[in-house]
Amino acid sequence: MSGSTFGKIFRITTWGESHGRGVGVVVDGVPAGFPIVPDEIQKELNRRKPGQSRMSTSRAEKDSVEILSGIFNGITTGTPISMLVWNQDADSSSYEYMKNTPRPGHADYPYQAKYGIRDYRGGGRSSARETVSRVAAGAIAKKLLLRYDIEIVAHVIELGGIRAKAMDFDEIVENLEKTPVRCADIDAADRMQAAVDSARKEGDSIGGVVEVIARGVPPGIGEPVFDKLDADIAKAMMSIGAVKGVEFGAGFECSRMKGSQMNDAISLRDENVFMETNNAGGIIGGISTGMPITCKMAVKPTPSISKEQKTVDMESMKNTGISIKGRHDPTIPPRLVPVAESMMALVLVDHMMQNGSISSVSLLKK
Amino acid sequence: MSGSTFGKIFRITTWGESHGRGVGVVVDGVPAGFPIVPDEIQKELNRRKPGQSRMSTSRAEKDSVEILSGIFNGITTGTPISMLVWNQDADSSSYEYMKNTPRPGHADYPYQAKYGIRDYRGGGRSSARETVSRVAAGAIAKKLLLRYDIEIVAHVIELGGIRAKAMDFDEIVENLEKTPVRCADIDAADRMQAAVDSARKEGDSIGGVVEVIARGVPPGIGEPVFDKLDADIAKAMMSIGAVKGVEFGAGFECSRMKGSQMNDAISLRDENVFMETNNAGGIIGGISTGMPITCKMAVKPTPSISKEQKTVDMESMKNTGISIKGRHDPTIPPRLVPVAESMMALVLVDHMMQNGSISSVSLLKK
Amino acid sequence: MSGSTFGKIFRITTWGESHGRGVGVVVDGVPAGFPIVPDEIQKELNRRKPGQSRMSTSRAEKDSVEILSGIFNGITTGTPISMLVWNQDADSSSYEYMKNTPRPGHADYPYQAKYGIRDYRGGGRSSARETVSRVAAGAIAKKLLLRYDIEIVAHVIELGGIRAKAMDFDEIVENLEKTPVRCADIDAADRMQAAVDSARKEGDSIGGVVEVIARGVPPGIGEPVFDKLDADIAKAMMSIGAVKGVEFGAGFECSRMKGSQMNDAISLRDENVFMETNNAGGIIGGISTGMPITCKMAVKPTPSISKEQKTVDMESMKNTGISIKGRHDPTIPPRLVPVAESMMALVLVDHMMQNGSISSVSLLKK
Amino acid sequence: MSGSTFGKIFRITTWGESHGRGVGVVVDGVPAGFPIVPDEIQKELNRRKPGQSRMSTSRAEKDSVEILSGIFNGITTGTPISMLVWNQDADSSSYEYMKNTPRPGHADYPYQAKYGIRDYRGGGRSSARETVSRVAAGAIAKKLLLRYDIEIVAHVIELGGIRAKAMDFDEIVENLEKTPVRCADIDAADRMQAAVDSARKEGDSIGGVVEVIARGVPPGIGEPVFDKLDADIAKAMMSIGAVKGVEFGAGFECSRMKGSQMNDAISLRDENVFMETNNAGGIIGGISTGMPITCKMAVKPTPSISKEQKTVDMESMKNTGISIKGRHDPTIPPRLVPVAESMMALVLVDHMMQNGSISSVSLLKK
Repeated sequence: MSGSTFGKIFRITTWGESHGRGVGVVVDGVPAGFPIVPDEIQKELNRRKPGQSRMSTSRAEKDSVEILSGIFNGITTGTPISMLVWNQDADSSSYEYMKNTPRPGHADYPYQAKYGIRDYRGGGRSSARETVSRVAAGAIAKKLLLRYDIEIVAHVIELGGIRAKAMDFDEIVENLEKTPVRCADIDAADRMQAAVDSARKEGDSIGGVVEVIARGVPPGIGEPVFDKLDADIAKAMMSIGAVKGVEFGAGFECSRMKGSQMNDAISLRDENVFMETNNAGGIIGGISTGMPITCKMAVKPTPSISKEQKTVDMESMKNTGISIKGRHDPTIPPRLVPVAESMMALVLVDHMMQNGSISSVSLLKK
Repeated sequence: MSGSTFGKIFRITTWGESHGRGVGVVVDGVPAGFPIVPDEIQKELNRRKPGQSRMSTSRAEKDSVEILSGIFNGITTGTPISMLVWNQDADSSSYEYMKNTPRPGHADYPYQAKYGIRDYRGGGRSSARETVSRVAAGAIAKKLLLRYDIEIVAHVIELGGIRAKAMDFDEIVENLEKTPVRCADIDAADRMQAAVDSARKEGDSIGGVVEVIARGVPPGIGEPVFDKLDADIAKAMMSIGAVKGVEFGAGFECSRMKGSQMNDAISLRDENVFMETNNAGGIIGGISTGMPITCKMAVKPTPSISKEQKTVDMESMKNTGISIKGRHDPTIPPRLVPVAESMMALVLVDHMMQNGSISSVSLLKK
Repeated sequence: MSGSTFGKIFRITTWGESHGRGVGVVVDGVPAGFPIVPDEIQKELNRRKPGQSRMSTSRAEKDSVEILSGIFNGITTGTPISMLVWNQDADSSSYEYMKNTPRPGHADYPYQAKYGIRDYRGGGRSSARETVSRVAAGAIAKKLLLRYDIEIVAHVIELGGIRAKAMDFDEIVENLEKTPVRCADIDAADRMQAAVDSARKEGDSIGGVVEVIARGVPPGIGEPVFDKLDADIAKAMMSIGAVKGVEFGAGFECSRMKGSQMNDAISLRDENVFMETNNAGGIIGGISTGMPITCKMAVKPTPSISKEQKTVDMESMKNTGISIKGRHDPTIPPRLVPVAESMMALVLVDHMMQNGSISSVSLLKK
Repeated sequence: MSGSTFGKIFRITTWGESHGRGVGVVVDGVPAGFPIVPDEIQKELNRRKPGQSRMSTSRAEKDSVEILSGIFNGITTGTPISMLVWNQDADSSSYEYMKNTPRPGHADYPYQAKYGIRDYRGGGRSSARETVSRVAAGAIAKKLLLRYDIEIVAHVIELGGIRAKAMDFDEIVENLEKTPVRCADIDAADRMQAAVDSARKEGDSIGGVVEVIARGVPPGIGEPVFDKLDADIAKAMMSIGAVKGVEFGAGFECSRMKGSQMNDAISLRDENVFMETNNAGGIIGGISTGMPITCKMAVKPTPSISKEQKTVDMESMKNTGISIKGRHDPTIPPRLVPVAESMMALVLVDHMMQNGSISSVSLLKK
């Protein structure tokens, strides 16, 4: 049951429910001598914060992070960094009606089956609110990776069936925040937005695909046989609520390719080895090749919809119906972007510490 | 670098290279009082053994397993079960030519980049031969799950672009071994076989999709937030060489669905809660729902092809070409079937032991 | 560097420095359906709280615990329980003078050597204040064990060379809190107290021995070979600051015994197997025997003394002297009692969950 | 139940029973590019091998190690190193008589209570034979530490109440193997030997104390709060059968010392910080100080004695007596010396890899 800890050397432990006192994370293993100010964390939290646009719920959380430990005079000391965000504006009353009626597509039923009890207010622990902790920790990991010239970006490449055109890393970074759907292809973004709006009108929701890219990862990161870099990234992404699939490089497309098409030719560029294509998505045999790591994840439509759905009253054990009230995103992918970036960063830092590429002791000695 | 151990309570540790002395596994955490005979392990090893058909390499390994510990008078004692398979018929000479020329699509280059040295004979540690250890351990896990009425089956649902029709669990189990491609849809299987044959003739290879299903998993298995059941299964499957993508239930399809289509209606059948559909693939919020767990994985085409490919001579640091000699499967999915079943079983047993559904102490007390 | 997490299934993660914002702990793996009220935690925190008697520092912390997650309507939900205690009355200014002069017997120098930076205020992370987190988590573990009729008590059996007489479990429990030194032998307690007072007068400090006993542990708890029950308890106790030695049963005495004296005769009492003596301390081969688990730990004298001591000025790299100002316990063992009980409880619960003796899922199903 | 794995980054997994096919270990995390020849392992195994002198059992195992993986052309490749030693000359028949009568002081009863079944031949998994695996892995760890100028030695400092005089590191290394009792104080060694001989004549056994010292460990190794270096060493030593107590530096003596006596004065020597004494045993706050790490362990007398002892017939559930036949050491400490050295080495390497002091990737890059 101790599933709230992630990582081996760079390790995070999260806690908190949607409508409890708050949510938080303890980040252990941050090298000492690394400057961190709350604003750097806040900036990332603001990216995932709801109430930013008509894409997302109108719940207005301030989500101001408090750093409680691990930093002394603005510098990390190597001890655990505890961060906390208080819950506010949580309207619990609006959840009473679903106490005994598990919502289709939600974790209500399996939680009840597992624990025999659940905090049903806003999904409790299984709420997307839990990602506050991931993003706060990810902000530290992402800053740490920049020291090693590793950049991470995630973006929405498909929403409601509308696909964005291929774009290069720098374009994506430049356009990412220009549209509320977080699609770098501005034209596609407009159409995606329309799809979201019509879904909302219907009291329905839509899914999409998020891609996360890590650029600058040196070759040789990852641990065969079970702790492969792609295996750990897949676990990290699948651990995000609403993600139903993960693929690297050509992904599922590779099942329709010939070996001669799939294999990335190895070649020299300015005396450095590189691959002429990147169907492998930057990882082969579980170890980074030096090419960008490209990972796509399938995100299901928001399960909370106002349309009437079938469910069961667990008390009377009778079939019944439910229409989800309250404030909900009509689509998840845009808000999942900073979460996906964070999980990628957490895995990379942990793996680089596992093999000594990043020393867990002081950066002051670096 | 200690990536060769998998599992928390039911834990396996594997070792061995393709052309070393042998390969093996230590399975720790097997409940005491459980009867196991070598034949039960051997039966599964024979399923993954090469040289069975024209689908696979002509390398003829006997692959007879030796059980070295943990079993006393045919009964497990609760101590680690060490199993070993000696390597035979390994023709190393045929690999000398690739010592300095990494094979495209293979782990040669990243291993070299990581370790500065590699056992290049037959791919060394990154060879598919490593899966012998997984299957031997999986045989124990699968038998253990049967005690809890949990059945696992994997099958090829797509090969070279040819898709099998949907079939139910029992049909799949019945037809699975009837065709060398391990596709339960006999008609599709014939076409898949033809595709494999033509790929071989071209000196090329093809990829496919394997589905693994677990039936009978009770609701409530899985640990939020990071050790979600689907997250751990995704890691397990991605840790298998050649797998480039993993999805559950509707998987990537869900990104094109509306919430009202994706959500599985909750209903009653003989006073038991069930879902009328299974787009979730048996897991929501990282916890099993009681519905069958359905997981699909994308398998890339065999990287070893005789067609000439571009690579680099790491010694002279010059561009060059390579044509892979030796004995190789023209396609991987059929042989991956028992491996996928094993990894699913290993994850399920470990999770059921983590939450006490399977006690790690004596089954004699059960 | 991720050393702030303890336990495999019942897992705690602690954070906080002596003079930071506060200290806290995340307890993950607590079975669902278990009633917990803050007062139960507070009661234990009050036992370790300073300022209770002339035995301990005059620093007056309120130490009121706040439970931030994991409990819904007074019942555990199976999700992480986050507990926080704010720091108050922390006079940091009084530590400036030791910024560059590591205190003998303290972790100042090794921390500086490891991290290149340290929060020198009150010892920062290495302060005894960190034990607040252990005791808060231990309160939950101890209550959980009571459900399984397992009782734990710790007491001071030696202080400043004065030894308490042997007493049975119930006597210890009855007398434990009657004396500020937490020695159940009232007569010895008076003499211990005198020794503490004279040490204080001299500006010096004294050490002692704490014994912790667990009664009611069933036989069969513990995991060979490395995760032996006594091995994990030894780690737990040695992880407490100031502990320099740990022994079980006859402990170091056994090195002077013959096998015929040391071996505990196995015999029957009311048809149950028991040992006529308990030189083994309740554990053989790393597994509990059913006899009480008895563990003693050597506690060094408080390193903070006002007597002048030799040290080095790390800035000027010159030899110098230091006299520790501020408020300090003249002896540690009495305040270590609740900490030792907590660590014993944490190890036992974790081991009982590892082998399914305590299910990590709902107690409601028990 | 998965207790047979030790270490986080440098990780060993052991298997095997006293009278099974053999015993072995998988060492994962060994840096690549490190030369290892079987003789280096064999040399250490010979040190622990029985039948060397009248100190130990007459069981004559060849104990020749076979290296099955992880080494290519005499150099480590970074993949798991699997080592195996076949069992020979195992006379199982001589154990039938104890099938239902647990031996006092042995793990027979707790194993039976835990698993409901046990391999009673020669103690099965709980036999000292298991230490073959530790010593084989330790040989690699010790050689690795020499690269970092870290030397480890263990020796017997007390046996049957006879204490050796204090000696310096080099003397100990020089004299260690000169006497069968492995006591560097030759004069004391003679008296210890006499004590062993008389114990054997009486059909009894004696205990002792082993000290293990690590010289050259740089300051800054160890992870607060729970994974303290001394905490992990204590666990490692307590995990060795027959060890009933562990202490560091002044150990239990510190409980009778004043702070002014216990604290090690910090001073300068050739511009380097050192401690004028080493009561801390080289570790404060769980982190190495740069002084030698000194750890003592209490070793109980061999539980197997021919003298009649009380036990219970578990089948008839009646009190009975037992006299242990077969070949047994009259004392354990001398043979425990290489085991203690190995465990110390394993902990140090793992901790140095955890904080990047030893990189888990190629030493070729060093």
